[in-house]
Amino acid sequence: MALHLLKEPRERSHRLAEALLALKDRLTICRRCYNIAEGDQCPICSDPKREPHVICVVEQASDILPLEKSGAYHGLYHVLGGVLAPLDQKSDQDLHLDQLVKRVRSEGIHEVIVATNPTTEGETTALYIAQALKSTGVKVTRIARGVPVGSDLEFADEATLSRAIEGRGEL
Amino acid sequence: MALHLLKEPRERSHRLAEALLALKDRLTICRRCYNIAEGDQCPICSDPKREPHVICVVEQASDILPLEKSGAYHGLYHVLGGVLAPLDQKSDQDLHLDQLVKRVRSEGIHEVIVATNPTTEGETTALYIAQALKSTGVKVTRIARGVPVGSDLEFADEATLSRAIEGRGEL
Repeated sequence: MALHLLKEPRERSHRLAEALLALKDRLTICRRCYNIAEGDQCPICSDPKREPHVICVVEQASDILPLEKSGAYHGLYHVLGGVLAPLDQKSDQDLHLDQLVKRVRSEGIHEVIVATNPTTEGETTALYIAQALKSTGVKVTRIARGVPVGSDLEFADEATLSRAIEGRGEL
Repeated sequence: MALHLLKEPRERSHRLAEALLALKDRLTICRRCYNIAEGDQCPICSDPKREPHVICVVEQASDILPLEKSGAYHGLYHVLGGVLAPLDQKSDQDLHLDQLVKRVRSEGIHEVIVATNPTTEGETTALYIAQALKSTGVKVTRIARGVPVGSDLEFADEATLSRAIEGRGEL
């Protein structure tokens, strides 16, 4: 990057430096969902067109981007800030889990979609979230895990195929 | 391969040649499910330990291998021999579809799991199979499509994420 900037006009590195300073000054964390924001609330929480009674739980704010791109989801989000990982000393106290339970109660949420990664930690955390939300009576769902769209069965790994068979649905 | 065999003893290319001849002589197609066989029936159809009332429909015999490796499936198979692809002039007459309907009726099948590839043609064929089996009253299911196990949401494509949201299930 340094070699590239060396070739560019001075103006360019100036603008980059300014942007980097603004990054830390202007960007904040959304008070409601812990997404990246410029101000109190993130653009998704403050959008009146979003479905306000569904929350999609993700591990990191960066997971919101691909979900938004897919265009299949129109509700709100809740960023956990990680997953349960005892070996990395990440416990439920390090996640925004209590805040999720509070939101479900106070915002009249109908459904919580757990979209943690389909890894061992992600699956464990998903079950933990379902347990934590049990007392609220909210419907808790999990994104489908299976063979990716456009792929070939021949090249799917065993765990994914196993999951695809188990999670089969009626046609 | 030729260069490799040149370095190996004569015996080795001899054995390979014999195996290639045997391939065409000894291997046949299973009369019941169209899998590769050595004789009238394939090893899966003639295995008394397999669950005899479930059929998993696959495009090619090569799709059976990964499903068997996954260890999640214990029923029988039915090889379609392709998918519906009008542009490639593949119609329902080219697939072993009538034979599937016949099997469902004569073998007392409880469930047909459609495991065609999660591609456009595969999905179309899956719907077509469900339609063709409607008169038999058998339960027709489709393998789950979604984010592959062990993957990261951040790197999932839009179609797969969209499918993962739509196909979500209760936790």
